[in-house]
Amino acid sequence: MRALRYYGPQDLRLDYDVHEPDCLPHQVKVRPSFCGICGSDLHAYLSPTAIPFKDTPHPITGETWPVTLGHEFSGDVVQVGSEVRNGLAIGHRVAVQPTICCEKCPPCGQGLTNCCDLFGFVGLTGWGGGLSDYVCVDARYVFKLPDSIPSDIGALVEPLAVAWHAVDQAIITPGDSALVMGAGPIGLAVVQCLKARKAGQIIVVEIAESRKDFARQSGATTVIDPQTEDVVSKCKHLCNGQGPDIALDCAGVAASINAACLAVRKKGLIINVALWEEPVPIEVNNLMFGEKRLSAALSYTTVDFQNVITALEGGLLNVEGMITKTITLDRVVEDGFLALMHEKDKNIKVLVNVRA
Amino acid sequence: MRALRYYGPQDLRLDYDVHEPDCLPHQVKVRPSFCGICGSDLHAYLSPTAIPFKDTPHPITGETWPVTLGHEFSGDVVQVGSEVRNGLAIGHRVAVQPTICCEKCPPCGQGLTNCCDLFGFVGLTGWGGGLSDYVCVDARYVFKLPDSIPSDIGALVEPLAVAWHAVDQAIITPGDSALVMGAGPIGLAVVQCLKARKAGQIIVVEIAESRKDFARQSGATTVIDPQTEDVVSKCKHLCNGQGPDIALDCAGVAASINAACLAVRKKGLIINVALWEEPVPIEVNNLMFGEKRLSAALSYTTVDFQNVITALEGGLLNVEGMITKTITLDRVVEDGFLALMHEKDKNIKVLVNVRA
Ligand SMILES: NC(=O)c1ccc[n+]([C@@H]2O[C@H](COP(=O)([O-])OP(=O)(O)OC[C@H]3O[C@@H](n4cnc5c(N)ncnc54)[C@H](O)[C@@H]3O)[C@@H](O)[C@H]2O)c1
Ligand SMILES: NC(=O)c1ccc[n+]([C@@H]2O[C@H](COP(=O)([O-])OP(=O)(O)OC[C@H]3O[C@@H](n4cnc5c(N)ncnc54)[C@H](O)[C@@H]3O)[C@@H](O)[C@H]2O)c1
Ligand SMILES: [Zn+2]
Ligand SMILES: [Zn+2]
Ligand SMILES: [Zn+2]
Ligand SMILES: [Zn+2]
Repeated sequence: MRALRYYGPQDLRLDYDVHEPDCLPHQVKVRPSFCGICGSDLHAYLSPTAIPFKDTPHPITGETWPVTLGHEFSGDVVQVGSEVRNGLAIGHRVAVQPTICCEKCPPCGQGLTNCCDLFGFVGLTGWGGGLSDYVCVDARYVFKLPDSIPSDIGALVEPLAVAWHAVDQAIITPGDSALVMGAGPIGLAVVQCLKARKAGQIIVVEIAESRKDFARQSGATTVIDPQTEDVVSKCKHLCNGQGPDIALDCAGVAASINAACLAVRKKGLIINVALWEEPVPIEVNNLMFGEKRLSAALSYTTVDFQNVITALEGGLLNVEGMITKTITLDRVVEDGFLALMHEKDKNIKVLVNVRA
Repeated sequence: MRALRYYGPQDLRLDYDVHEPDCLPHQVKVRPSFCGICGSDLHAYLSPTAIPFKDTPHPITGETWPVTLGHEFSGDVVQVGSEVRNGLAIGHRVAVQPTICCEKCPPCGQGLTNCCDLFGFVGLTGWGGGLSDYVCVDARYVFKLPDSIPSDIGALVEPLAVAWHAVDQAIITPGDSALVMGAGPIGLAVVQCLKARKAGQIIVVEIAESRKDFARQSGATTVIDPQTEDVVSKCKHLCNGQGPDIALDCAGVAASINAACLAVRKKGLIINVALWEEPVPIEVNNLMFGEKRLSAALSYTTVDFQNVITALEGGLLNVEGMITKTITLDRVVEDGFLALMHEKDKNIKVLVNVRA
C-alpha cells in the first residue's frame, strides 16, 4: 500500500510498497479519506522533535524512522477486529483519535491519557498514520461520524479537540469574556469552541493580516494587532476596565503569554496551549498581583473527541472556512509541507485528499 | 511619641517627637507591643520598592517619605472610635492586619482586598506603623487575641496569614504531599500551615544549613539540599514515583520554581509565594506535559487572619521556635536591620519589643 513516510529531516517519501497492516482483535482497520497537515508535522519536517530518533525507538510502539505521517484524519472502516464491541461496522465513516498511551501509568489509570508518562501519536511515533491507504487503530479511539458531518470536516475533529480540551480547562459562564493570542488553526478553533461555550466577547490578537480576517470570520468580536495597539489597555477597556475572564495563548511567543497574563482580570485564568522550544521569561509578579492562574492544556481525551463531534452535529461549531486548500497524496511535500512553510499565514488548514 | 521612620534608603530614624495620631470614629487606637521585621522591610531599607517615592505619594494614603515602619504587630487597644461596633474594648490585646485598600475597585467589592487595584500596607505606605508608640487602624482589621496567645506570638499572625492564605490556594485532602521551596520565615510558616491542614509528607528544599534544622523542627518530613541532591528525582521517589500533589515556592529563584514545576505530579498545583524582581525563565512545557497549574498567592484577607488566630488557639500551629531574637526599638537598625542582613540565615523572625 501507499504511505507517506518520514525518513529524517526534510526527507519525506511516498512509498508504494509498504506492508498493509493486519487488524488485531481490538482494532479497527480504517481507510483514510482526508488528513490535515499541522504545525507539528511541519516542525518534524525540519527537526524530528516528536518523531522517535534512530537510536531511541518510541517506548510504546518500539518504532523509529521511517514512520508514517498523518495524525488528523477521517476515513472509512474496512475491517473490524474480532473483539470490538462498540458498534463500529464496515462502511462507517469515522474520525480517528491518534492517541497512543501506555495504559499502565497513573494518569492512564485515571483516563487522563493525554498526561500518559510515555504518550505518543499515530502518525508521528509509529503504528502507521493517516497519510496512507490503511491504518489499524484501537477501536476505542475510532468515532463514527454522523451523516451531517462530511469526511473532510471529520479530519478537523482532531485540531478541534485540542481547542475544545483547552477551552474546557476553564469553567465558562455564558457571557464570559475571552482573549485568544494567535489566530492560527488552533487559535481559530479555540474561537469556535469559545462560541460554542457561549463566551461573550472574544478578543483575538494576531499580527498576520490574512489571519485577522479569518479571526473575524470565525467569530472574534475584536481583533487587535499587537504591533500597532496596546493589547493590555485595549483588553481592559473592552472588558469593564478589568480585563477578560480568561486568556488562551495559541501564539507561543514571550510577548503573547506575558500580555495575556497582564490582560486578564484579577483572579483570571491564562491557559497555555502553545508548545515552547525554550524557557520563557515570564513576569511571575504579574500572576502575583491579582492572583492569576496559569494552566496548560495538552492534547485531548476521548471525552473531547466525542464532545467535538456532538457540537459539530448540533451546529455549534462552524468550521468550513478553516479548510483553505485540499491537495493530493502524491504532491504532499510540494503542495503541502513546502507551500505551508512558505505561505503559512495564507492558509489555515490544508487537507490531503488521501484517495484522490 | 516615638516612631521609627523611613527617610530613604539606609536612612531610618527613631524620631521622638512624632505627632500622636487621632483615633477616627471607625478606628481603634493601638499601642504596639511586639513587631516583626521581615524581608520587605530589609528590601525597603536598601531600595524603596514598597515605600511611596518622594514624587509619587501613595494613591490611598497620600503619604511619601518619611513613613513609619512595622507591619507585623500586636498591641493593646487604648482607644475605640465612636462608630466601632465589633466588640473591641480598651485593654484588649490584639493583632493588626496592616491592610490598606481603596474599597472602590471590583476586587475590594468582592472582599478580595489583597487584590485591590491600589493596595498598600500600614507600616510601609503610610497611616503609621507598628514600630511606634501609637497607631490608629480601621477597626475591621483589628483582631482580639485569645488569652492563650501571648502578644509576641500575636506579632507572628501577619506572616502566618501570608502562609495560610498561600496554602489555602490548594484544596488539601488529609495526607496530600507537599513540596516547600525555601525555609525562610515564610517557608517555615507554610510548613506549619500545611501541618495544620493535615498534609502528609512535607518536603522542604533549602540550602542554608541553619534553616534546614529549622525546617525539621517545624515539621518537614524530608529536607533536601538542591546543591547536593536532585530535587525532582528525590521528590518523585518519595511520592510514589509521581511527585508531590502541590508545591509552594517560597525561595524565589528560577531554579526553585522550575524544580517545583517539574517535581509536582501530573495535574499538580504550584503556588508561587515569592516576589520577583525580574522576569523568570520558566519552562512552560513542564507545565504542559502533565497539565500542571501555576498559581500565585498574595497577602491575605480578614478570613486568613481569623483562621490563623483560631488555629493558634486550637494548638494547630506551633510557632514559638520561629522567634529567634527579640530586640529594642532604640537599637532596631543595629540589632535588627543590619544584623539580619549580615546573618540572615541564622535568624528566622526577629521581633522588636516596642515598649522595652
Ligand atoms: N496543546 C496542544 O496539545 C497543542 C496541539 C497542537 C498545537 N499546539 C501548539 O499550539 C500553537 C498554535 O498552533 P497553530 O497551528 O495555530 O500555530 P500557528 O503558528 O499557525 O499560529 C500561531 C499564530 O500566532 C501568531 N502570532 C505570532 N506572534 C504573535 C503575537 N505576538 N501575538 C499574537 N499572535 C501572534 C502568528 O501570526 C500565527 O498566526 C503552537 O505552538 C502549536 O505547537 C498545541
Ligand atoms: N506572597 C506574599 O504576600 C508574600 C508576603 C511576604 C513575603 N513574600 C515573599 O516570600 C518569599 C520568602 O520570604 P522569606 O521572608 O521567607 O524570605 P527568605 O529570603 O528569608 O527565605 C528564602 C529562603 O530560600 C532559600 N533558597 C535560596 N535558594 C534556594 C533554592 N534554590 N532552593 C531552595 N531554597 C532556596 C534561602 O536560603 C532562604 O532561606 C520572598 O520572596 C518574599 O518577598 C511574599
Ligand atoms: Zn496536529
Ligand atoms: Zn500511560
Ligand atoms: Zn512582612
Ligand atoms: Zn480596592
